[in-house]
Amino acid sequence: MNGLDASVDSARERLGLVIDQRLDDDHVLDRFARVIWGMVAEPGDRVAGAVISAFGAREALGRLDANDLGHAALSSAELTAARERWMPRLRAIQVDTVLTVARRARMRLLVPGDEGWPSSVDDLGLHGPVCLWVRGTTEVWRGTRSAAAVVGARAATTYGTHVGAEFAAELGGGGVTIVSGAAFGIDAAAHRGALAADGATIAVLAGGLDRPYPSAHAELIERIAATGAVIAEVPPGAAPTKWRFLQRNRLIAALGQGTVVVEAGWRSGSLNTAHHAAALGRPLGAVPGPVTSGASAGCHRLIRELEATCVTCVDDIRELIGVRELGSMGAEERLFTDDQTRVLDALSTRTPRSTADIARRAGMSVDDVRSRLGMLSLAGRVRGDESGWRRVGS
Amino acid sequence: MNGLDASVDSARERLGLVIDQRLDDDHVLDRFARVIWGMVAEPGDRVAGAVISAFGAREALGRLDANDLGHAALSSAELTAARERWMPRLRAIQVDTVLTVARRARMRLLVPGDEGWPSSVDDLGLHGPVCLWVRGTTEVWRGTRSAAAVVGARAATTYGTHVGAEFAAELGGGGVTIVSGAAFGIDAAAHRGALAADGATIAVLAGGLDRPYPSAHAELIERIAATGAVIAEVPPGAAPTKWRFLQRNRLIAALGQGTVVVEAGWRSGSLNTAHHAAALGRPLGAVPGPVTSGASAGCHRLIRELEATCVTCVDDIRELIGVRELGSMGAEERLFTDDQTRVLDALSTRTPRSTADIARRAGMSVDDVRSRLGMLSLAGRVRGDESGWRRVGS
Repeated sequence: MNGLDASVDSARERLGLVIDQRLDDDHVLDRFARVIWGMVAEPGDRVAGAVISAFGAREALGRLDANDLGHAALSSAELTAARERWMPRLRAIQVDTVLTVARRARMRLLVPGDEGWPSSVDDLGLHGPVCLWVRGTTEVWRGTRSAAAVVGARAATTYGTHVGAEFAAELGGGGVTIVSGAAFGIDAAAHRGALAADGATIAVLAGGLDRPYPSAHAELIERIAATGAVIAEVPPGAAPTKWRFLQRNRLIAALGQGTVVVEAGWRSGSLNTAHHAAALGRPLGAVPGPVTSGASAGCHRLIRELEATCVTCVDDIRELIGVRELGSMGAEERLFTDDQTRVLDALSTRTPRSTADIARRAGMSVDDVRSRLGMLSLAGRVRGDESGWRRVGS
Repeated sequence: MNGLDASVDSARERLGLVIDQRLDDDHVLDRFARVIWGMVAEPGDRVAGAVISAFGAREALGRLDANDLGHAALSSAELTAARERWMPRLRAIQVDTVLTVARRARMRLLVPGDEGWPSSVDDLGLHGPVCLWVRGTTEVWRGTRSAAAVVGARAATTYGTHVGAEFAAELGGGGVTIVSGAAFGIDAAAHRGALAADGATIAVLAGGLDRPYPSAHAELIERIAATGAVIAEVPPGAAPTKWRFLQRNRLIAALGQGTVVVEAGWRSGSLNTAHHAAALGRPLGAVPGPVTSGASAGCHRLIRELEATCVTCVDDIRELIGVRELGSMGAEERLFTDDQTRVLDALSTRTPRSTADIARRAGMSVDDVRSRLGMLSLAGRVRGDESGWRRVGS
């Protein structure tokens, strides 16, 4: 009795509080099947995505059991290999154990198409999550809210954590949701910055939500769940393996309209998130730092090799993710034309000079000098009287 | 008697040591005319470049005097304006004063086409210098020598001067000539770095070579002249005006195969050099720094707005200017495939596990696991015996 052959009533009861009770029978059974798929297939399993997309989660599960997954878009070799990796898990599955833990920890289950489902992860296509486990509120990604993924090295410097927290606070306070991974270093700084500014923040975990990781961040993760959201695609009880960290990163990248890497060593795991963002066609930014700091080497690498945008302030990030900027920026004011510069060069602050003298010194015609002097006079940069022209100030 | 109507013998005698004595008459007179053009026209005067290009320096001077500069590529308005700015200077010219100072300071005069002429400045076209005054050796830009312009803010930080000096030392020690402007901050650090590594370096001054500027760098400029070269396109006695600084920057950009800005504030003058490099189609690099440092804001701006290459080490600069790299770099070594990562995740360092157990934990087929275990075993990352497989090390 592994719980696969659930009746609607049984499935509804066992899913219990993790789903909305008003769902119709088909949706209840689909949800139950997706819980199982989330336990059988590893995150990012394209073949699982393909068979669920082709048959629906519930029918695909039945066909898996009956060895009847023939599907045009997949080779029989792919299907055979997939079956071989799924079946041992399916045979050993303990759905109720997972659901009991989920209920106790007040997790909610979300599946694609739910009102609370973050539609941005649909861009992952067949590599998308079959379901999501959530603690907290889905409001953080609802509607027109902007979101930025802010990630970086665990081995961050004071500079990196300072910049990460500052950027996240300013973005979070301005209504942009901060998505990160709750790891040591930059991730934690980003979450904390957002929380400090009463901003919304989402932590995406690599393991089950009942196992906050790193455990030293259990309290931080709790605070995130209290006002924002903590999510995972793996079921309660799942260990945060290396593979799941790499796949977790694709969710972070997908949840942000853009990803910003604040600090990253040459081989930092956060570069993986950056690559996911780039693969998704999401804008990618990297914060530069001293070239003498190994903690910024990965950021510089992203700028050089992946054409990440060099991000130096919050306005840069807003521009990156397409949020209307709050202030004007970057307008280059050219105070003086070349000729005006040459006229100013030819003037003294003390000795008054004639137009002809200025023309000779500046290497310009007298007419040109006269016209420039007029403009400079209007700008208050020169002063003329019967004795001649003088420069004002420096 | 302003010295314009020089006979060949007079011109030869007056030019004296600043030119090679073996020149034929035409070349002597051309040179003499170019000295005068360099006193009459400001650096970068396109109209002067055009008439010299059309008639030759000597004939153009005669035609200027005779008001007969009609030339297809220039409008009569342009010529009239040019004449108006040149004539007052021509009438007041004192060639011998300049030549006396030049001889005393052991300057050499170079004109386009000379064996020692730096052909890279010819890319400036009609905006190029009519002549160059040189102290030191022309060897620094001869033949196949590579050259990099290394420039930056006067108001540099410890970080910037450290990086500027380090990069220049490593490049200079490796045979790349360092071109800069002898200014405070980054420029001086670049020259000093090159000198410290017994590398070649060129200082391009905005004023006459008899007026080392800034005066606090007189000794540094002397050291540069002793082993490298100090050059200017303006004649001895010329003041380093704002305009001439801006035009000097185009020479720095033209003399380097590429330009690297090490530190620059948001409106630093070194950005002007960067724009000249970009306008010349020369590769442009900028060294990133902390986003919290205003001294790096201009560098980040170049990376964002002018698509400057983010330069973090000397190999990056060598790559930028197309010099063969000394070491291998940037090769991304992917140590393990995704599947290998999943197999490693499923292994314990202590408890031996069966292939079937590993397959279930990894969510992979037994065959795949076997093949990955084989490769990981060859790499020394796993060890198997009759009791099962274990991970080696961390």
